[in-house]
Amino acid sequence: MTDRTRVLVVGTGAIGSFYGAILARAGAQVEVVSRSEHQQMREHGVRVDSSKMGDLSFQPATVYNDTSEVETPPDLLLLCVKVLDDIDRAELIRPAVGPDTAIVLIENGIEIEPPLVEAFPDNPLVSCLAFVAASRVGPAHTEHKAYGRLVIGSYPSGINPAAEQLSKLLEQGGINAPLAENLVTERWRKAVWNAAFNPLSVIAGGATTTDLLGSDNEQRLGTILMQEVCDVAAAAGHPMPEDLPEKSVVNTLKMPPYHNSMALDYLNGRDMEVEAILGNVIREARRLDVPVPHLDTVYGAVKILQRTLAGRQAG
Amino acid sequence: MTDRTRVLVVGTGAIGSFYGAILARAGAQVEVVSRSEHQQMREHGVRVDSSKMGDLSFQPATVYNDTSEVETPPDLLLLCVKVLDDIDRAELIRPAVGPDTAIVLIENGIEIEPPLVEAFPDNPLVSCLAFVAASRVGPAHTEHKAYGRLVIGSYPSGINPAAEQLSKLLEQGGINAPLAENLVTERWRKAVWNAAFNPLSVIAGGATTTDLLGSDNEQRLGTILMQEVCDVAAAAGHPMPEDLPEKSVVNTLKMPPYHNSMALDYLNGRDMEVEAILGNVIREARRLDVPVPHLDTVYGAVKILQRTLAGRQAG
Repeated sequence: MTDRTRVLVVGTGAIGSFYGAILARAGAQVEVVSRSEHQQMREHGVRVDSSKMGDLSFQPATVYNDTSEVETPPDLLLLCVKVLDDIDRAELIRPAVGPDTAIVLIENGIEIEPPLVEAFPDNPLVSCLAFVAASRVGPAHTEHKAYGRLVIGSYPSGINPAAEQLSKLLEQGGINAPLAENLVTERWRKAVWNAAFNPLSVIAGGATTTDLLGSDNEQRLGTILMQEVCDVAAAAGHPMPEDLPEKSVVNTLKMPPYHNSMALDYLNGRDMEVEAILGNVIREARRLDVPVPHLDTVYGAVKILQRTLAGRQAG
Repeated sequence: MTDRTRVLVVGTGAIGSFYGAILARAGAQVEVVSRSEHQQMREHGVRVDSSKMGDLSFQPATVYNDTSEVETPPDLLLLCVKVLDDIDRAELIRPAVGPDTAIVLIENGIEIEPPLVEAFPDNPLVSCLAFVAASRVGPAHTEHKAYGRLVIGSYPSGINPAAEQLSKLLEQGGINAPLAENLVTERWRKAVWNAAFNPLSVIAGGATTTDLLGSDNEQRLGTILMQEVCDVAAAAGHPMPEDLPEKSVVNTLKMPPYHNSMALDYLNGRDMEVEAILGNVIREARRLDVPVPHLDTVYGAVKILQRTLAGRQAG
């Protein structure tokens, strides 16, 4: 690799903008792909305001409309788009992937790596979990509110040189970026909360964490939902600590009320990552023959809700 | 009793207006209690348009603001208000209940009789199940669309003279009004659909029947939810036919898509009968030690939704 790492960010939402900014800050040559905000980004750059780290705005080396315009493949391709049924992520990035390009997933969910492994079997794959509070506040404008840690590993396990390189750059940029030998286990750990509470908050009308855990009965429900995710994780070879569900309830109740990402998507009429967050957990449960009656019910209700919303838009 | 049966309707929504109209048509002396539409009803009567039966509008013998104004207790007191946590139905009707007044419940849900039995242990109690499509279309104005059958019995079982009298009057008024020896069993039969689908349609954003059963997965969920209600019903001494859940799915799919009453309440921002329809089924399940994980999840989600909606109104 050359002295200056070449990074291409595909998906310039809050996550892509924030980590792109950190990498630019660390000295990487950061290019971005943005169809809708192409003009804005080319003229004014990518604006990122952080309450903790100050102004992180950066001017991308190149702003592409589309991956098909990329002539020199990057060293690291950061894939930061939502995982949705109607987006073929492999096809989206294919034109920009060279023989040595490492594909870096900064995305939510379980079992989101296999389609990319299948499409690019010879490329290094890096899988990451973001623990960050950041949101879009306007065109090409992101606000970073808190946290920022990125947990990095290879898929399905181990640590490849691209993961090490990414971690080093992010640490240089001022972010905590630990390497994890068992990234998939970390994904399951994050899924325990997300699969249980994200879709539940949606069918509960876009509930905050406080409303989700507002009574003993609902705390019991939340605990059972998390326990079912733990059961699937254990069957999949990723056992979680026994007290994780109870501890998660206690910790969530200590925090000020907030809307999780899927609740925000719902309240803002945006697409929701139902399959990546919960559907893939359900499919793993079926494959491994683990009963998940409470998760099944939430999944069924949220699928009906999506159908209801789609019908209302169409009608 | 006198020649002309004296009827008092408490709760002049679609149900109270429709059955009040049928009883007036049968020659009963019908009085009504309405606080909000008192003036309208006194001047213009209660308007009921039926696509099947024509104009059923009637002029009540008296329109009261409140039950405290009632001087001569009725023979039959029709209680047609929603069953909600913050309405004490016994206190609502107490001033109008005489020693011989039969209390007639035309209300939805399970285990809704006990508070009235407790408050009026010496009065005849009649419990009814309405199978009618009627809705309010304006102040003191109800539209009857289809059906109308009222299933009538005593509580907890048998048939008392007041039930017979009511049935006879309604049949005279042109309505099918069968007597049921085991009215509570009939309530459970109706609950199999209502407890399963009414709250589910709410957490699914106010879904229609077609959306509720829009895929194999959701048909399976609906069947399991109904089976859980059947399990509770059986443990409570009211076994249902084994094929009831499957048959209900098939029958529902044959009908044109519609919003059930709770979905309509939700979509119109009105109070929902969650406890009468589902909460009481859950409590019976607990008492009888019947596992109902799918119903538990729907119940939890709809309770969180109610909290979310209340918080939004307050905030």
